Amino acid sequence: MANPFSLPPHHPLLIVISGPSGVGKDSVLNEMKARGAAIHFVVTATDRPMRPGEIHGKDYFFITSDDFAEMIEQDELLEYANVYGDYKGIPKQQVREAMASGKDVVMRIDVQGAATIKSMYPEALLIFLTTETEEELTARLIERKTDTGKGLKLRIATARKELQRLPEFDYCVVNADGALDDTVNAILAIVASEHSRVHPRKVEL
Amino acid sequence: MANPFSLPPHHPLLIVISGPSGVGKDSVLNEMKARGAAIHFVVTATDRPMRPGEIHGKDYFFITSDDFAEMIEQDELLEYANVYGDYKGIPKQQVREAMASGKDVVMRIDVQGAATIKSMYPEALLIFLTTETEEELTARLIERKTDTGKGLKLRIATARKELQRLPEFDYCVVNADGALDDTVNAILAIVASEHSRVHPRKVEL
Repeated sequence: MANPFSLPPHHPLLIVISGPSGVGKDSVLNEMKARGAAIHFVVTATDRPMRPGEIHGKDYFFITSDDFAEMIEQDELLEYANVYGDYKGIPKQQVREAMASGKDVVMRIDVQGAATIKSMYPEALLIFLTTETEEELTARLIERKTDTGKGLKLRIATARKELQRLPEFDYCVVNADGALDDTVNAILAIVASEHSRVHPRKVEL
Repeated sequence: MANPFSLPPHHPLLIVISGPSGVGKDSVLNEMKARGAAIHFVVTATDRPMRPGEIHGKDYFFITSDDFAEMIEQDELLEYANVYGDYKGIPKQQVREAMASGKDVVMRIDVQGAATIKSMYPEALLIFLTTETEEELTARLIERKTDTGKGLKLRIATARKELQRLPEFDYCVVNADGALDDTVNAILAIVASEHSRVHPRKVEL
């Protein structure tokens, strides 16, 4: 008989933080980093040129378009997209290595990309960030500088479409105005709680 | 189209805290109460006589054997057991009222009773408390006063059997020696996280 006192084994989590544009995904991730959580934060690969002040391996992994194409062909990207002409994607190898070292992995992905990851890795842990009301999101989108050149109305319409995909997510956390600490507490509670599950999520890349 | 900004509704949780005898269920519940969590802690009904110092409605609801029999017949007990000749059970009405007021409900039940509740209410949230090693549990059982008259060997054998039922539970929390705070933090993280679920547990009694 197996020792009944053996505890469920530790499985690193593949955590996706998503939500409509303007909801505050970057602020949330920055606060999680600032708290020094034992989590690997994914660095995205891109083929766009490095901008002044950016650091290779911190802001992005800056690679050539040919190398990016090679990663697509080798199926070495967890997810990728063409964002206004630039390719951005998440290298599987980076995620594999972090998880092999026992660390949970966090990535910030748009709603569509998050849903794609869930369809490929049903055991990924998807957290949907939202605001309490549409007015709150609208206000943030107005405040926010944007380099997309897209109008507010279009961005609100997109956010509405994205919110309809909430049922594909596991958790929903409200990132209320001025309550970043509560948001991060809620996310860290989810992460802690997932590690207490008797039947843990197991993701194999 | 429904307002896509509507958040998942709040559903109170039916939380069962269980685990082998000696693991520290009462200490954990007492610490949860001391923290003033907005949780209803179930008061068990019993037909045994009140002992000096006990308070009706706090330690137990002291009722007659006939009233207890009536509750069994009316199916008004969530779970009940005959413990060394005395009947003990959880009145459904109490749980219904607490949940109707929006409160999570916590009850402390032995492993077999917890499994029974799960089979009747699959959406109940079951937390299994355990120690890190069998030695730790044994040490606590030795330290502990017992009024059961049962030998240590029998209680260890029972604990082993109970640990084999871990797969029927949702979460497993280690209540390590001198780490009661960590245990309660882990439980409160589970409760918070469950309230962030996109598809919440819905229990109807």
